[in-house]
Amino acid sequence: MTDTWLTSLITANPQEGFELAITLSRRGVKYTQPDPEMLHKLRPDYAESADSLTAASQVIAINFQTVAAANNYWRN
Amino acid sequence: MTDTWLTSLITANPQEGFELAITLSRRGVKYTQPDPEMLHKLRPDYAESADSLTAASQVIAINFQTVAAANNYWRN
Amino acid sequence: MTDTWLTSLITANPQEGFELAITLSRRGVKYTQPDPEMLHKLRPDYAESADSLTAASQVIAINFQTVAAANNYWRN
Amino acid sequence: MTDTWLTSLITANPQEGFELAITLSRRGVKYTQPDPEMLHKLRPDYAESADSLTAASQVIAINFQTVAAANNYWRN
Amino acid sequence: MTDTWLTSLITANPQEGFELAITLSRRGVKYTQPDPEMLHKLRPDYAESADSLTAASQVIAINFQTVAAANNYWRN
Amino acid sequence: MTDTWLTSLITANPQEGFELAITLSRRGVKYTQPDPEMLHKLRPDYAESADSLTAASQVIAINFQTVAAANNYWRN
Repeated sequence: MTDTWLTSLITANPQEGFELAITLSRRGVKYTQPDPEMLHKLRPDYAESADSLTAASQVIAINFQTVAAANNYWRN
Repeated sequence: MTDTWLTSLITANPQEGFELAITLSRRGVKYTQPDPEMLHKLRPDYAESADSLTAASQVIAINFQTVAAANNYWRN
Repeated sequence: MTDTWLTSLITANPQEGFELAITLSRRGVKYTQPDPEMLHKLRPDYAESADSLTAASQVIAINFQTVAAANNYWRN
Repeated sequence: MTDTWLTSLITANPQEGFELAITLSRRGVKYTQPDPEMLHKLRPDYAESADSLTAASQVIAINFQTVAAANNYWRN
Repeated sequence: MTDTWLTSLITANPQEGFELAITLSRRGVKYTQPDPEMLHKLRPDYAESADSLTAASQVIAINFQTVAAANNYWRN
Repeated sequence: MTDTWLTSLITANPQEGFELAITLSRRGVKYTQPDPEMLHKLRPDYAESADSLTAASQVIAINFQTVAAANNYWRN
């Protein structure tokens, strides 16, 4: 991928940080499988499976740890 | 999602922090599958499976790490 | 849940900290499936499966990281 | 469990720390399934499965993070 | 492997850090299975499976935690 | 195991640190299943499975977090 999609981990508030964590999680998938058609085809496999949704939420949680630390947990 | 649901990671005590970790875990699912009917339909798949419940508890544990660090572990 | 079950992450020693990590892990399950009968029914599914026990031990390990950090690893 | 098995996370060197991480991982299993006969019966299920051994190694890795941090990574 | 492929964890920006996390994740696979033909053969198994892609994204997330910490989260 | 295999987490550079993380991951397996013949027999089960290789890479990533922190991320 040659586009620029991540220039900073700093966000204005925790919710934007959580949404950045989602972006990071999706990018991790996209780098591994760049074909948008295949990704579209696979969507029901995880969006309609309880265990897959839990797994997706876990990747977001891990990335949110990184983003939250980068922002000093938006303490101030 | 356009609603505001996360304005701070700071909580009054560890139990509220744990409950925020649960909220974060559920939001991770909801961002991936926003359809409330589908989520309702999937509920028995994880709420009645031992392994799925362990997996859900793990996501909560990861998010609780973040919330606990944000609150300096409620040490004072 | 309206009962108070977590007022502090500080424990007297590492073993009590490990046991608090177990409590946190079980609470993560209970918040997701509050029905005690269902939890009782599911018990053999994980207590008699090697992989489920490893998964349970992993959630405890993650929560123990949090508790140990909160207690500065009981260094003094 | 009423026996005392964990009084400190400090070890003399990294290898002892790694072995403590193994102890923590096994205790996580034992607290969940205290019956030694059942644990003995389940042993082949994980000791003869590649994926189960990888999962066991992962729990050890997580606990080793905790022990290593407690010991300031045995830097001196 | 005798080639030099990792001389520093420092990158110019978060996106390069994310890409380094992908390299680390792939290297973890390659050290375990160095045969390029086998890796090629296995590609459809994970690139066309939703759960495998989530798992791949999770490994990237874990490695990104390391790279981001090394770079002080590119705060300045 | 009575042999000495881990005397320090400090390495000369990140690549050696990554290789130490691989050693830690393998030792976690070996402590659980010390029989070299069984380990040899199980090798195809994970070295020829995409998901098992991803899982192996994940354990390495977790151990690399520890080694990288021990070395202050080889920043200087």
